[in-house]
Amino acid sequence: MKEIKVSSIGERALISRLSEIFKAPDGKEREQKGILVGAGSDDCAVLDLKGEDCLVITTDMLHRTTDFPAEMTPWQMGWMSASVNLSDIAAMGAEPAGLLMAIGMPADTKIAFVEELAKGMQACAEFCGTAVIGGDLDTHTELTITGTALGRVKKSQLLLRRGAKPGDFVCVTGYTGSAGAALEAIQSGKTVSENVLKALFEPVPRTKEARQLAESGAVTSMMDTSDGLAMSLYDLARESHVGFIIRENSLPILREVREFISSSEELTELSLYTGGDFELLMTIDPQKLKKVQNICNLIVIGECTKYEAGIVLESPGCKLKTIEQRGYQQLKVETVDKSS
Amino acid sequence: MKEIKVSSIGERALISRLSEIFKAPDGKEREQKGILVGAGSDDCAVLDLKGEDCLVITTDMLHRTTDFPAEMTPWQMGWMSASVNLSDIAAMGAEPAGLLMAIGMPADTKIAFVEELAKGMQACAEFCGTAVIGGDLDTHTELTITGTALGRVKKSQLLLRRGAKPGDFVCVTGYTGSAGAALEAIQSGKTVSENVLKALFEPVPRTKEARQLAESGAVTSMMDTSDGLAMSLYDLARESHVGFIIRENSLPILREVREFISSSEELTELSLYTGGDFELLMTIDPQKLKKVQNICNLIVIGECTKYEAGIVLESPGCKLKTIEQRGYQQLKVETVDKSS
Repeated sequence: MKEIKVSSIGERALISRLSEIFKAPDGKEREQKGILVGAGSDDCAVLDLKGEDCLVITTDMLHRTTDFPAEMTPWQMGWMSASVNLSDIAAMGAEPAGLLMAIGMPADTKIAFVEELAKGMQACAEFCGTAVIGGDLDTHTELTITGTALGRVKKSQLLLRRGAKPGDFVCVTGYTGSAGAALEAIQSGKTVSENVLKALFEPVPRTKEARQLAESGAVTSMMDTSDGLAMSLYDLARESHVGFIIRENSLPILREVREFISSSEELTELSLYTGGDFELLMTIDPQKLKKVQNICNLIVIGECTKYEAGIVLESPGCKLKTIEQRGYQQLKVETVDKSS
Repeated sequence: MKEIKVSSIGERALISRLSEIFKAPDGKEREQKGILVGAGSDDCAVLDLKGEDCLVITTDMLHRTTDFPAEMTPWQMGWMSASVNLSDIAAMGAEPAGLLMAIGMPADTKIAFVEELAKGMQACAEFCGTAVIGGDLDTHTELTITGTALGRVKKSQLLLRRGAKPGDFVCVTGYTGSAGAALEAIQSGKTVSENVLKALFEPVPRTKEARQLAESGAVTSMMDTSDGLAMSLYDLARESHVGFIIRENSLPILREVREFISSSEELTELSLYTGGDFELLMTIDPQKLKKVQNICNLIVIGECTKYEAGIVLESPGCKLKTIEQRGYQQLKVETVDKSS
């Protein structure tokens, strides 16, 4: 096993191996250190701030060749680097409290490029009501940006991947598959609307919506859909020990994406298995659905079931098929794990 | 100016340009957001935790070719990645509260390598009484590690680069120039002791010493010496608006380094202008020197003077010469700024 390369086991398997090494201390020691949620299980780590609040924190590394399509402007690269991290803060129901950006760049990068990058970061931070409070600068062969975002939330309002119960509604904000459709359009040289391209190039963290959802008390679990809807459903299922039935007809797909892609199989493929959308996926206590329906464009896409029932898609003809565990993974797996 | 490349202006000048873009909000808005120290001026950013405590946070990006000498083991690379960040937490007088590690690595990296890396990170975190609580995994052409460390400290004990006053003593922990000597030995193919090599490969964050120094109430300003003693003196001078007189004879140099390097000019060059030591540089209220002298191996190397007196080195014959503003900079400057 030791001789095996990281490319053979995939991101989630490697995270699980490393989480063993970064074993969060147990019981009393863990409590003393104030670690409420450690490495590997949620969008953010969570630290106890001793009072009624907790601190959530996340970090994400992006590289020019793998994360920024060639068509992106430096401003958009900056925006996205901030956005991926602030979306994780939103996923916990927290209020952003600051952003740190470490930038490694080739020595011949123009000052104007770096300034545009910084302006994009700052714009996204401001949009989310926070600021860039620190960072690091470095020379590197390839543009590499590691963002770290902090957030604060009352312990009573903290939203985790754990907490969904059979019978809960499954909801998403916004649309699913838009960023994937934009990427496909670019790769195949097709023209798509500005709206679709923006979903990929300038993803909007659902900061305000997340705070209202957390305050509502109706949400039982939440995460973002940055790795795709299917991967996110698997993550929620594992942490909450539930299954899901998702209605194919209810998947919210942007009108312009429907116009651009005619095959319904392809639309479902995009909605479930492509990443980059940064929407919120959550489960809602059915008694409290009314409390959240006016908060934002929130679509019920299915229900939680028992863990043993798996994660299934109900097509319009009431046929059921298993949703596969695949989507966007930072470390590509050579053999895809088609769990049922 | 926009067409100029980052390599022409150097790290500190670029930080200052970007700090303009990441302008921390002023006055009331800043207070609302709880930002006590923003980007660009200290080892860490500082957030108000509303009670008596504040949160300090820092991030640092390291790359295999520029930051890890070929002789380092993966365990040592892991240790160092944690250490550079935990040293910044110590520099603020804070207690470490958690570490996040984002790792970008080639797809053909062996699992055994990544596990050793993780064990080194975990060992350093444990040594400093904290834990790795989160991170990110990614494929990348070159091994790149961005660590983020968090710490907590009472506002009344927070140590900044600002605060030194003319008449204060200047002190350092440990030895200066050891890591630089190790690097030179490796580059010139000379044999040096394990002790010297360890200074470079396994730098020890001064976590415990920093906490005791902060509690003493005797320290007026502090930072770490990771960019070299001279650069650190310039940073303290700028933030505190003081000058320094440093006594060449008092510079603490490891016995094994003295044995290995015979020229006193070269020893002074190493002590002042090479980085990687991760010791604490601080200024001490002269009335309270006795309170801190038993805390750790603390050497008085000089005194604070007025800003206008500059930063000078007093040689054994009482000759004064200006200490140059040079040392370790992440973004190498093409023309060195020899400020007086």
